[in-house]
Amino acid sequence: MAIESWQIEANKCKEILANSIPKQYVPKEGVLPGEEAIHVADICQKNGLLSENELAITVSTATDLVAKMGKGVLSAEEVVTAFLKRATIGQQLLNFATEFMADEAIARAKELDTYYKETGKLVGPLHGIPISVKEHIGIKGRICHTGYVSWIQNIAPEDALLVQLLKKAGAIFHVRTNQPQSLMHLDCQNNITGMTVNPYNRKLSPGGSSGGEGASMGFKCAPLGIGTDIGGSIRAPAAFNGAYGFRPTALRNPYDGIILAGEGQESIRCVVGPLASSSVEDMDLFMSAVIDQEPWDLEPSLVAMPWKRVQGTKDFTVAIMWDDGIVHPHPPITRGLQYAKEKMQAAGIKVVDWEPLDHALGWDIVATLYFPDGAACQRKIVADSGEPLLPLTEWAFNYSRPEALTIHENWEYNAKREKYRADYHALMKARGVDFILSPTYVGVAPEPGASHYWNYTAIWNILDQPTAVFPTGLFQDPKIDKVESSYVPRSAEDEREFAKYVPEKFEGAPICLQFTGKHFKDEETLAAAKLVSDIIQA
Amino acid sequence: MAIESWQIEANKCKEILANSIPKQYVPKEGVLPGEEAIHVADICQKNGLLSENELAITVSTATDLVAKMGKGVLSAEEVVTAFLKRATIGQQLLNFATEFMADEAIARAKELDTYYKETGKLVGPLHGIPISVKEHIGIKGRICHTGYVSWIQNIAPEDALLVQLLKKAGAIFHVRTNQPQSLMHLDCQNNITGMTVNPYNRKLSPGGSSGGEGASMGFKCAPLGIGTDIGGSIRAPAAFNGAYGFRPTALRNPYDGIILAGEGQESIRCVVGPLASSSVEDMDLFMSAVIDQEPWDLEPSLVAMPWKRVQGTKDFTVAIMWDDGIVHPHPPITRGLQYAKEKMQAAGIKVVDWEPLDHALGWDIVATLYFPDGAACQRKIVADSGEPLLPLTEWAFNYSRPEALTIHENWEYNAKREKYRADYHALMKARGVDFILSPTYVGVAPEPGASHYWNYTAIWNILDQPTAVFPTGLFQDPKIDKVESSYVPRSAEDEREFAKYVPEKFEGAPICLQFTGKHFKDEETLAAAKLVSDIIQA
Repeated sequence: MAIESWQIEANKCKEILANSIPKQYVPKEGVLPGEEAIHVADICQKNGLLSENELAITVSTATDLVAKMGKGVLSAEEVVTAFLKRATIGQQLLNFATEFMADEAIARAKELDTYYKETGKLVGPLHGIPISVKEHIGIKGRICHTGYVSWIQNIAPEDALLVQLLKKAGAIFHVRTNQPQSLMHLDCQNNITGMTVNPYNRKLSPGGSSGGEGASMGFKCAPLGIGTDIGGSIRAPAAFNGAYGFRPTALRNPYDGIILAGEGQESIRCVVGPLASSSVEDMDLFMSAVIDQEPWDLEPSLVAMPWKRVQGTKDFTVAIMWDDGIVHPHPPITRGLQYAKEKMQAAGIKVVDWEPLDHALGWDIVATLYFPDGAACQRKIVADSGEPLLPLTEWAFNYSRPEALTIHENWEYNAKREKYRADYHALMKARGVDFILSPTYVGVAPEPGASHYWNYTAIWNILDQPTAVFPTGLFQDPKIDKVESSYVPRSAEDEREFAKYVPEKFEGAPICLQFTGKHFKDEETLAAAKLVSDIIQA
Repeated sequence: MAIESWQIEANKCKEILANSIPKQYVPKEGVLPGEEAIHVADICQKNGLLSENELAITVSTATDLVAKMGKGVLSAEEVVTAFLKRATIGQQLLNFATEFMADEAIARAKELDTYYKETGKLVGPLHGIPISVKEHIGIKGRICHTGYVSWIQNIAPEDALLVQLLKKAGAIFHVRTNQPQSLMHLDCQNNITGMTVNPYNRKLSPGGSSGGEGASMGFKCAPLGIGTDIGGSIRAPAAFNGAYGFRPTALRNPYDGIILAGEGQESIRCVVGPLASSSVEDMDLFMSAVIDQEPWDLEPSLVAMPWKRVQGTKDFTVAIMWDDGIVHPHPPITRGLQYAKEKMQAAGIKVVDWEPLDHALGWDIVATLYFPDGAACQRKIVADSGEPLLPLTEWAFNYSRPEALTIHENWEYNAKREKYRADYHALMKARGVDFILSPTYVGVAPEPGASHYWNYTAIWNILDQPTAVFPTGLFQDPKIDKVESSYVPRSAEDEREFAKYVPEKFEGAPICLQFTGKHFKDEETLAAAKLVSDIIQA
């Protein structure tokens, strides 16, 4: 079969990736297990692939690493090297990267070490911290294809503003990460660098669209990562890979230089935020490091709201949403919620149940607003190269109406969205609820190509409420998490998702939960998420 | 000629207005001058229409009145009565009101006085302050027609949220004010309660769309008023009536319960803000009284940004925009800017010139986004009743494209708008400019029906920069402000506006200016505007 022109284009990126992998860190042949190894998340601990010091570094929080670099106990070069090594191993097992930037990372680490030696000071709150970054977040002079073959010709003229600010804070970017075609999957496959898999179970998806980030966090290729989220794209990958993620309120983090189809579409906003491998605290560190630089003075559409320092207290009420009333969660998720409830109650936190407010309406609004043009703009970008439309891309595009909305229909949906937001907020207040704990997804990490139901995450996008994801410390276990044989699905959609739960398929997948606060209460949400996750994981 | 059905509908509102006027305050026949009296702003001072005490009250700032009520020197009833009296006289001369609410206002004042007597305290920071309110800002149980005959059937189910919060702060609403058909005039005429005129020159327009508010402030019918602004509708009326006005950054003041055609249109936002008869300080009082109540917890689309207390210092740079490069300002405006420059420089403020950044582009963006549907929605509302389309309504509707934008075209304009905002902000920074002083309009108050050029105000709408208007203390004088006979207009549009300047027509019209800060720097803008206006008026 002839090679098609889109494949030639895609091969450019495959070559860039292959050439960028730091050869010196690639384990010798035979050291890494073959395809038969399903669970690889802890492989570095078990196989002597990293030294004790490197292992210790890669399981540390960014907060601890910065503290150690501040005392001169660790150098930036040691830190970056350890994560580069781990990321290189991860790449062999997970295909999570699109491009390594090893030389630049080491060079920058050396500069930071020199600065520290000369001044005795750190350059900023993220001094020497390696951060992995989703591909569609621009890096100067490099391709930014956003999961589309036709966009492989796009070279970022500058670093995305967020990248610039994180660099100023001392962060080091060592690896760029994979994403699905069009970015509109809770999964991670494209026609360029292929499919990323989940370190906890390589037969499962790492989620998406920040799926390379999810795998990066799950394998601890970096203490922090950057993802974007318009329907769950930070939170699903965080949850599926046993990691942490935070979708802030829109217009707080700088967004300039992030390349997405449909520029100027404002009815539902894509937001950028952190993922973390090891702690909620690191996400707060990320947010404060960025927002303390007053990004609104560089990107004036942002809200000029400083990052508050909030002291977490247990004086709040958490409502648990057991089920969104549309699709029933799988047994491990319900077990995770039950476990969280008991732990929180034992710790003296007030816990109540959350009756969801018409999530079907929420879904109608968000799904309609994802593609107000009938996905014409995205379909054209795919068609431009001739690359095949992947099934999950087609699935997502079909959320839209067949025809573009008229301007008046778009206004009507904007108004519905505003009313829904106000009603949801009022209900939280009326019920005295500060935070909502809920499933991030129907189940734990799904099989590749199977993530059809978005509304456990997408609901918080349309409501624009800040939401953090953290692990419970539990994992799916086929012996415990049996099929609820007595459950009667309420609809064909519920039936479809119910049927996907075959316990043996999900063995070892992490059980993570989603913790949502009120609009603009980002700081309070992270502070409470830290407290609650510590309690649940204890 | 038969009375048409729309006239019958409009007559309902005329009757409501006529019946609401507090008869006891209407001067006996012959006391007020006839049509020959052009300048009536000071008529209460000259004709013994108000007592000394009433006169003193009505020329006071809200800040002073609250202080006096706090000391028990004045009662709320005295204050409200004085303004009701003055407003009733104003109505005879200016036709600025749509409805008086005298009984409710007096009853509320008595309640406040009782509260004060019993507790020794004020109920809030606006205790006893009468506020006039533009008609399309909902008042519970009353018609809210927004300048459309077909909407006369609309009864507000609740007070607008802003009204609720101001009431909680102690404010008293005594009169509702007039606005033009469709609200899209910088003028004040509709087919319901007719035309409002300017107290400084009754042959001139009070501006609009908050034209009733402008006249209310100019005649001192209240120390504070509420207007809305999507193209200059607070600022033009403030400027034309020798008063103060403030267009805050969007999403700071609560907007729920304000009725405008095109709900859900978000590309260019209408904002609500204060007008004041006597000081910038009163507008700061208004803003803090509202935002201190955390309106974002009641209207979650607002930005959760507290109102900062800012101390004004002279350590800033003001750039003067003498001309927007499209339409040349009339001589009195240029004189006002020159006067302001000299006063500021004498006071030690750094003053530079402002070269505008492509205001033609700004106008293309804002004009296109006013009516992305080709004004179909507004045209239908006018047509529904059969009322005639007024010339300035047709003029504004014709800003739009003949056809509705497609969704993609709307996105493209949103993106253009974002880029223009970022470029303008960056230019202010690059030039070291903190504030821009500029004409509010081509000239002083125009003749009714003649306000065709919006872009001195609309530019700050599309840029979403906070802007205050204040008087210079100067007035148009035909003997000084002669035609610039050597000026050669640059375009037909410039020629049209140039030709409108016949010095004798504008005698006595106040010369006010517009003072613009950076996006979200509302507090800093008001603090600096207070300082600068004090210097200029001194």
